[in-house]
Amino acid sequence: MSRKSAPKSVIKRLPVYLRILDNLIRRDVEIISSRVLSEETGFTAEQIRKDLAYFGAFGTRGTGYNTSYLRDKLLRIIGLDKQTRLVVIGAGHLGKALTRYNASKNPYVDIVGVFDANPEEVGTEIEGMKIQPIADMSDIIKAENVKVAMITVPAEVAQKVADNLISLGITAILNFAPTKLNVPGNVHVHNADLTIELQSLIYYAMEDEKQNLGGNNIPQKP
Amino acid sequence: MSRKSAPKSVIKRLPVYLRILDNLIRRDVEIISSRVLSEETGFTAEQIRKDLAYFGAFGTRGTGYNTSYLRDKLLRIIGLDKQTRLVVIGAGHLGKALTRYNASKNPYVDIVGVFDANPEEVGTEIEGMKIQPIADMSDIIKAENVKVAMITVPAEVAQKVADNLISLGITAILNFAPTKLNVPGNVHVHNADLTIELQSLIYYAMEDEKQNLGGNNIPQKP
Repeated sequence: MSRKSAPKSVIKRLPVYLRILDNLIRRDVEIISSRVLSEETGFTAEQIRKDLAYFGAFGTRGTGYNTSYLRDKLLRIIGLDKQTRLVVIGAGHLGKALTRYNASKNPYVDIVGVFDANPEEVGTEIEGMKIQPIADMSDIIKAENVKVAMITVPAEVAQKVADNLISLGITAILNFAPTKLNVPGNVHVHNADLTIELQSLIYYAMEDEKQNLGGNNIPQKP
Repeated sequence: MSRKSAPKSVIKRLPVYLRILDNLIRRDVEIISSRVLSEETGFTAEQIRKDLAYFGAFGTRGTGYNTSYLRDKLLRIIGLDKQTRLVVIGAGHLGKALTRYNASKNPYVDIVGVFDANPEEVGTEIEGMKIQPIADMSDIIKAENVKVAMITVPAEVAQKVADNLISLGITAILNFAPTKLNVPGNVHVHNADLTIELQSLIYYAMEDEKQNLGGNNIPQKP
């Protein structure tokens, strides 16, 4: 099957597998069964086998997956076998935090520029990079052939920034601005939501404080 | 079925449904089919029906789900029908960004304290709250009966901070520090990873630049 046929939900799980494999390799685990991979990820073993089958046959029946081999395959499938160059637009707290986080924690990306509209931020440094005026992003995006951008600007200017980025050749945007972006069909946008992870955690925190939520005790809506 | 029987993977999807429902309600959509919910989330319609069935029967066969009704149910199931009080430990860029993001974008939580070890940060304000010394967190956590904490401190002090929080009664930790925390069995930890969303986006960005990744052209590992 061609990789294009894999649905979005499968693609979203690939980095989760990658993270688990990175951890296993760090712990010198060489072989992993889909059952154990299932326990580590929370996805069913069948789901994992189906997901990986979109891209080829990577495991050995009855033994499992070689962790390094599967990681290498996943890196190529996702497109992380070469560092991806990206730009960060918006150097507020979130832009700086993401720049720092990715520069220190994410070996698969190379942040080639951080831009901000605020003259007070321009010229200051984050992770050894000078924050540059937004007006200068054209040169770097073209010179470095950048295709991926993270947007962490205020919601009211996000669309304008996105339009500008797209006109410069950006085809993939990770949008942290709390607004929906309108983009042409060839541009991919992921809307990041920092609240989702927190909400599923709250479920567990509230578990002991709540009882009997099966349904009957919940008042009906009028 | 009791809510306790729902697997972790189901719980992780509930906030995703909630976000979609929030958007639909904002667009005045009153009824949604599981097919459309599937398109919006990327999960299969069958998966969605199974997920929701853990908690009761919410839809009408052939019509779909009432968006407001389902949202109310989800809020109660997750435990978001009352605001959850939480503390943020670590007021660097990430701690400040998360505080701002949740205070402005997440109506389901109430940040009751932000703490930092750096005397230069202590006393400065974020979202109208004064950043407080870590030594003072005990009083607030106890007075407000806080159960949930976000940790955005450097990796090397994260375990000590977590131990401290747990001794004060925290039972749920969203950990942004790039390290694994050891916690007792009754404490829930989610390790947030800001790189995962970016990586699945990169897949799409690289799609046009790569070809024929079905398997045969990939060199074998020795």
